[in-house]
Amino acid sequence: MMIVVMKRGAKTSEIGAVVKSIEGLGLKPHPSRGPEQTIIGIIGGENKEEIIKLKFLAGVEQVVPVTNNYKLVGKDFRPDRTIVKVNGISVGGDEFIVMAGPCAVESRDQILSTAHTVREAGGQVLRGGAFKPRTSPYSFQGLGEEGLKLLTEAKKETGLPIITEVTSPELVDMVTRYADILQVGARNMQNYALLEAVGKVRKPVLLKRGLMSTIEELLLAAEYILSNGNSQVMLCERGIRSFDKATRNTLDISAVPVIKQRSHLPVIVDPSHGTGHRAYVPATARAAVAAGADGIIVEVHPSPENAMSDGPQSLSFPEFAEMMNGLRPVAVAVGRTMSAPVEKGESTHS
Amino acid sequence: MMIVVMKRGAKTSEIGAVVKSIEGLGLKPHPSRGPEQTIIGIIGGENKEEIIKLKFLAGVEQVVPVTNNYKLVGKDFRPDRTIVKVNGISVGGDEFIVMAGPCAVESRDQILSTAHTVREAGGQVLRGGAFKPRTSPYSFQGLGEEGLKLLTEAKKETGLPIITEVTSPELVDMVTRYADILQVGARNMQNYALLEAVGKVRKPVLLKRGLMSTIEELLLAAEYILSNGNSQVMLCERGIRSFDKATRNTLDISAVPVIKQRSHLPVIVDPSHGTGHRAYVPATARAAVAAGADGIIVEVHPSPENAMSDGPQSLSFPEFAEMMNGLRPVAVAVGRTMSAPVEKGESTHS
Amino acid sequence: MMIVVMKRGAKTSEIGAVVKSIEGLGLKPHPSRGPEQTIIGIIGGENKEEIIKLKFLAGVEQVVPVTNNYKLVGKDFRPDRTIVKVNGISVGGDEFIVMAGPCAVESRDQILSTAHTVREAGGQVLRGGAFKPRTSPYSFQGLGEEGLKLLTEAKKETGLPIITEVTSPELVDMVTRYADILQVGARNMQNYALLEAVGKVRKPVLLKRGLMSTIEELLLAAEYILSNGNSQVMLCERGIRSFDKATRNTLDISAVPVIKQRSHLPVIVDPSHGTGHRAYVPATARAAVAAGADGIIVEVHPSPENAMSDGPQSLSFPEFAEMMNGLRPVAVAVGRTMSAPVEKGESTHS
Amino acid sequence: MMIVVMKRGAKTSEIGAVVKSIEGLGLKPHPSRGPEQTIIGIIGGENKEEIIKLKFLAGVEQVVPVTNNYKLVGKDFRPDRTIVKVNGISVGGDEFIVMAGPCAVESRDQILSTAHTVREAGGQVLRGGAFKPRTSPYSFQGLGEEGLKLLTEAKKETGLPIITEVTSPELVDMVTRYADILQVGARNMQNYALLEAVGKVRKPVLLKRGLMSTIEELLLAAEYILSNGNSQVMLCERGIRSFDKATRNTLDISAVPVIKQRSHLPVIVDPSHGTGHRAYVPATARAAVAAGADGIIVEVHPSPENAMSDGPQSLSFPEFAEMMNGLRPVAVAVGRTMSAPVEKGESTHS
Repeated sequence: MMIVVMKRGAKTSEIGAVVKSIEGLGLKPHPSRGPEQTIIGIIGGENKEEIIKLKFLAGVEQVVPVTNNYKLVGKDFRPDRTIVKVNGISVGGDEFIVMAGPCAVESRDQILSTAHTVREAGGQVLRGGAFKPRTSPYSFQGLGEEGLKLLTEAKKETGLPIITEVTSPELVDMVTRYADILQVGARNMQNYALLEAVGKVRKPVLLKRGLMSTIEELLLAAEYILSNGNSQVMLCERGIRSFDKATRNTLDISAVPVIKQRSHLPVIVDPSHGTGHRAYVPATARAAVAAGADGIIVEVHPSPENAMSDGPQSLSFPEFAEMMNGLRPVAVAVGRTMSAPVEKGESTHS
Repeated sequence: MMIVVMKRGAKTSEIGAVVKSIEGLGLKPHPSRGPEQTIIGIIGGENKEEIIKLKFLAGVEQVVPVTNNYKLVGKDFRPDRTIVKVNGISVGGDEFIVMAGPCAVESRDQILSTAHTVREAGGQVLRGGAFKPRTSPYSFQGLGEEGLKLLTEAKKETGLPIITEVTSPELVDMVTRYADILQVGARNMQNYALLEAVGKVRKPVLLKRGLMSTIEELLLAAEYILSNGNSQVMLCERGIRSFDKATRNTLDISAVPVIKQRSHLPVIVDPSHGTGHRAYVPATARAAVAAGADGIIVEVHPSPENAMSDGPQSLSFPEFAEMMNGLRPVAVAVGRTMSAPVEKGESTHS
Repeated sequence: MMIVVMKRGAKTSEIGAVVKSIEGLGLKPHPSRGPEQTIIGIIGGENKEEIIKLKFLAGVEQVVPVTNNYKLVGKDFRPDRTIVKVNGISVGGDEFIVMAGPCAVESRDQILSTAHTVREAGGQVLRGGAFKPRTSPYSFQGLGEEGLKLLTEAKKETGLPIITEVTSPELVDMVTRYADILQVGARNMQNYALLEAVGKVRKPVLLKRGLMSTIEELLLAAEYILSNGNSQVMLCERGIRSFDKATRNTLDISAVPVIKQRSHLPVIVDPSHGTGHRAYVPATARAAVAAGADGIIVEVHPSPENAMSDGPQSLSFPEFAEMMNGLRPVAVAVGRTMSAPVEKGESTHS
Repeated sequence: MMIVVMKRGAKTSEIGAVVKSIEGLGLKPHPSRGPEQTIIGIIGGENKEEIIKLKFLAGVEQVVPVTNNYKLVGKDFRPDRTIVKVNGISVGGDEFIVMAGPCAVESRDQILSTAHTVREAGGQVLRGGAFKPRTSPYSFQGLGEEGLKLLTEAKKETGLPIITEVTSPELVDMVTRYADILQVGARNMQNYALLEAVGKVRKPVLLKRGLMSTIEELLLAAEYILSNGNSQVMLCERGIRSFDKATRNTLDISAVPVIKQRSHLPVIVDPSHGTGHRAYVPATARAAVAAGADGIIVEVHPSPENAMSDGPQSLSFPEFAEMMNGLRPVAVAVGRTMSAPVEKGESTHS
């Protein structure tokens, strides 16, 4: 298997010429046209010299063999770290990023008060679920588009960009209209129709590791997104399933250095799902920074005991502020910057 | 949470009347209109006497509280075993059912020769993937609709009904036109949009347990299908992930008695994915019958070493025939019937 | 690494001569003198021709390189199946063997009534724990030697040989005086001092798989016993740990064909620990026979609800008899024999 | 179940009096005489008022019911943190402790050069295995007592106290003569005879979590040691088994806050076994400090590629020094102290 990577901005005519050349070699082209970049997989004819010569065609950036199972997400393909840009924030650079908010958007009050708390404590992105994949069909499934509108309102008030989950291909258009970052949840890590759909969008994607998926499978799932043309992907370790039920999941902290060694994509850790108990969130959040993660995503709720989902693992407002204060010196100790708390009412985007 | 179960064939006007009555109580109705039956979930107002009185309305079969997480799939709800009917075959009754065929449909020859072999050895259903969810975006993804057409041809020649996988909601219509049984694969067990889509269809569904999913979660995933109106569901144990790599997965044989104890739905075992090695398929297939499964689904290929996917776990034609012969006495020993081999060329549907 | 396997009955002088020859080659001999056979490992000097020539010395049976991690337990080393003989019973031959009894010996009445029940239903070996390894230091730890004496009394009354657990090297002598089969429990599968101790004894050993040990590790643990001179070893699958708590452990049924493929040693299945619930024991016991196991070991108790340990997974007397009746036709279906029930009071050893 | 905890230094006559009193109540005393303290378990007669009155007898410190499964290791029993003292070092206090050295002692040169490196980089304890439990009987099993002597020589040269593993009850006496800390390895976490033996010794014990053991089981294993009279116990998280083989084990970082919440005992993390790859050791070591561990135990080797065991996870000397430098600021960031590097040749104990 070989891949032809077209240059960003390659013309349609150039892509067409490459496709024809491949067919002329008796091989089957498998083009993925992304918003930024087009990639053309070639099935058959491995290692033929004719394929390698495709690199001389107009608009072609690279012709590379797939030796690992994954290619575009790998360090071989792109030695420099990918920095994902979201409304002026850089994920994967020097700054340690905190995404926070409730598991599910429940009401206007809930999401607005949380957004202000997140901003004031130094968080940079607001999380909140509008479409909730739930194990039981009878559990609260989220407010849907109404939830997205409430998130947008919170964004206007605080300036925080929004991350929210998209649960099926047909929702991608709608969620993309509102969200700054699309989240693909753990249950959907191998929902390939969904991965292809978010691969065709011009918004960053946070891809969560399935709760019993290997790191290799996580990278291959990301490859689906990149090979469809969207390279703005963040990988999220959120705990895997193990035999011990002392924590809801087992946070695989070594996933951070393992992914960093293999891929150029940023790594985010979710200590809330990773442990399932608010008491363990601050310690594991500190572990995440120390291990080299580029950020965390945590659950915060004005009143965790009344949360419609994930209450036991949600931090209260004071607990969140305290966690942030404990995190900052560790970030500095490993050579990161981290936003300082903001005075109440002070603007972050003036 | 309460559920109003409408009678099969309840009129639209009757359903409308129940919905209005619920709203009149200040509660939120959550109707799921299936092809066979409509179910109305009620959010809020638990245990209220007024809700229970809904059972006196026209067209209402039952009003039941959700005490377990799952309801419609549970033994409490339906003490008798569900028997799924597929083109004259009954799954869940006395007969032990064998579904067999290649992992993926690759060519006309491959699927036709396999279909004849399956029929002659006494198999009742032909399996074959046309849409293949693959871990890597660069692996063979199936022949698509062309594969479905080849399956249909094989069905015409042999009389065997077809089971094939559907991988996303937008494919449900197309696959339903060809298939006799829709398969939801392990990776999609918690793809709720897909579960809802197959819940609205009038074809039986085989739901595979996710390789990271508990039995409870499998039952809850089935509940999504039943609560959307389709009660023709078979549950499939296909191996879970464990630490030991001696087998591809760990076949959880005790899932058979556990599911039988909790649910009225038929249970199918997949010894091919369950072990990942053809050498272990016959022994685990025998274990499945002995443990009380209603059938198995196995991979057979004319030339396993050349298969485009899952070759190592596919049986050759002689191996399949031998497995069937070893299975039959065990089926009889546990009080089951199992089809005898058919003379070559002999018709099963004359 | 090479191993010199001495003939059964090789003289001490012959062994001494081999040891000297090895030292003469500048290598380090590592002799294990078992009651039946002596094995001499050689560290250093791999593949040297001089080592191979050791096979010409008196008393030497074979000189074999260790290519797998395990050697003596492997099929390469001994292609014929090992048949373990216990008081006239053969484990690993045509007959399917049932070992049964309480988790722990609790009283004279309890063990005698159980022994009679086991014998009458067609069981061949009486199990019962006198030394119980317990997770908590405050749980009942067994009756100790008193328990062994009660087992002996039950043996005298019924003629059933005894299997009981030995939990530390210093207990091996005492337990060996009473028991017909020594059991090494799951927690002790890698207690190497204990494995070496039971390897030096002339009684069969049942080695249980650790609850998170791979099959490879189980075979290597058995290798410790065989390389110390005791080749009368049975391997026992008793469930491994997984993420699903629907059953106490996950019975790895495919371990049966996997071990049969790799080793000549008999395989026993423990459906009681494998599932942890008496309701699932009969189905998984049938699965064990069907999959090719040589026997099962099950827990039976006169009054499971009052058992001092493992009550939920113990069968009552009528349940045990019923399970035996369900097992017999399946054994026959896979070409095994199985003892018929015995008339009450009828002697088995007259 | 009740426990009578005798005061440190209680007289034999006082203990005898309590035992008699218990027997006088018709109950069975179960005394564990440790070097520091005696504990008397009482079987039967739960909650009786007479038992509680035992607290008025001479020499009795407390009479406590066992409500959790574990008692002496729990926070309820001792709200203050236990500080383990080893040759002037305090484990569990403000200082973050680094124990380091080779997996196995291989030679005089190897252990002496490593000891100097550990000391100079700021490590406080020297680790090194003399008795190695190995999965295969044919692997290198350690130098035995010779290894202990070499460790002692290294201790004399550098002043570093020694931690080394003890693998069976009969070795406890010998190992205790040389070691400052006894290590019970993961495979032996539920070797109860060994736990009882180290519970009767006056040396600190480092108890490693079994790779298949829950945190609850780890605490209960520690309870065996404490209930035998030795309260100087450190608990060690060293990675558990999971399905993902990207790392040798899965380091369960949340075990640190979980154990801290439940127990007063110090927690040590082993990032070498936890990951199995030297490349991931520094990141996970930093995660350990950040999460609140009291120390780490890491493998260092003069020439990892030639190590007789665990080479891939051993740090070279420069890698160790670099890891220490990366650790120090993180320790400070979470309010810990950590020893500075020592000039070559400079004495630490003058």
